[in-house]
Amino acid sequence: MKQVAILGLSYFGQAVLDELLEMDVDILLIDKDREVLDRYRDTVSAAIGMDVINQEALEKTLPKHIDAVIIDMGKNIEASILAASYCKKLEIGTIIAKAETDAHGEILGIVGATKVVFPNREAAKRIVPQIVSNLVLNYLPVGGNLVIAEIEIPDSFIGKTVLELDLRKKFGLNLISVRSSETEYTLFTPEYRFQEKDIALVSGTEFDVDQFTGRLEKEGAKRSIFNSIREIFSKK
Amino acid sequence: MKQVAILGLSYFGQAVLDELLEMDVDILLIDKDREVLDRYRDTVSAAIGMDVINQEALEKTLPKHIDAVIIDMGKNIEASILAASYCKKLEIGTIIAKAETDAHGEILGIVGATKVVFPNREAAKRIVPQIVSNLVLNYLPVGGNLVIAEIEIPDSFIGKTVLELDLRKKFGLNLISVRSSETEYTLFTPEYRFQEKDIALVSGTEFDVDQFTGRLEKEGAKRSIFNSIREIFSKK
Repeated sequence: MKQVAILGLSYFGQAVLDELLEMDVDILLIDKDREVLDRYRDTVSAAIGMDVINQEALEKTLPKHIDAVIIDMGKNIEASILAASYCKKLEIGTIIAKAETDAHGEILGIVGATKVVFPNREAAKRIVPQIVSNLVLNYLPVGGNLVIAEIEIPDSFIGKTVLELDLRKKFGLNLISVRSSETEYTLFTPEYRFQEKDIALVSGTEFDVDQFTGRLEKEGAKRSIFNSIREIFSKK
Repeated sequence: MKQVAILGLSYFGQAVLDELLEMDVDILLIDKDREVLDRYRDTVSAAIGMDVINQEALEKTLPKHIDAVIIDMGKNIEASILAASYCKKLEIGTIIAKAETDAHGEILGIVGATKVVFPNREAAKRIVPQIVSNLVLNYLPVGGNLVIAEIEIPDSFIGKTVLELDLRKKFGLNLISVRSSETEYTLFTPEYRFQEKDIALVSGTEFDVDQFTGRLEKEGAKRSIFNSIREIFSKK
């Protein structure tokens, strides 16, 4: 059975805990706040009230051959950096730390985090394309210039099959799955015929997806209502 | 040009702002903290120091026909709920609010948020499968029972082509893209031959991906090192 320690039960730490509780994993919680620990004491292997920046205590408590450590000290950036460096000294193989800023993430990587997570930035990257495009429902950059997007199919698709549309050839898009607005994603055949309100999950380069969903369309130089606001509030 | 307002520049609000600044979008910032606003004043259309729970002031400031509003009041849960309800009264079409807990998210939906975002929970859902499986590098539930996962290819794939392996037939997996550990994701042909250290991006049902990556393997009833810790620390 895998053994995982969570250092700090801030929002991300708690969310990881909720997921781990669904699985067959040994969980060790460490946090200064005993009230938070008490909430989970009965559901985990161990819940220890302790300051993670007490190096000696941490080294005594943390098993050396633990599979992974999750670090989320909330706004206490210094504590997360120290905790990551102590875990590195213990030669823990997987050290996952939460960061908010580039600088924080960079330091965590330098002192020993094997993976730095930016939940807010990642969520922002998914949300913003949905704001600027009408067709996109969900958008996920997956590395390189490849993105995965959930899009409402344009009306021109209705009644045509996957094979007929040949998304890859015409738009450079790879169809991953299709669902009607109500049902769940499933595997599909090339003979599948698109229906009204279908949602398609596609992958492609950022450029191809943006072009297909109209994010690249220019709307001309409309006068912005914000210009008026700016004139009123700007002190320049 | 689309017009977007960000109410509250907590971590998520700032991350959304960073993304929006890359795009051709009109941005209005509203926050109580003028020091934070000053950092962005020169890069956005308007930066207004104001309490979002002052309904009258908010209604005067927020253009009725704005495309989207992003709400992130950090730990101030009451303020985010009030802001969402005021935006609803203004009949704003897209109201995106950040939440941490189920209850918070549910209330935001009730009072008028059109989309509730849980960045920490979403990041946790991606991270946890990586902890419990050795092959998985990234893991994303996309709705229904479909997941997208970035996996290290098993040694048995090396030297075989995409066509030969027929992942869909043998494992129920749909290959989205392949990259070597260094390079970026690109489109691939069925004739592509897997190489050592290739990373594959695949989609499939949660069950199929978990089975393929070994998350479903049982490791027997090994005695947990945590049991000892539990015995020491448990008061029961």
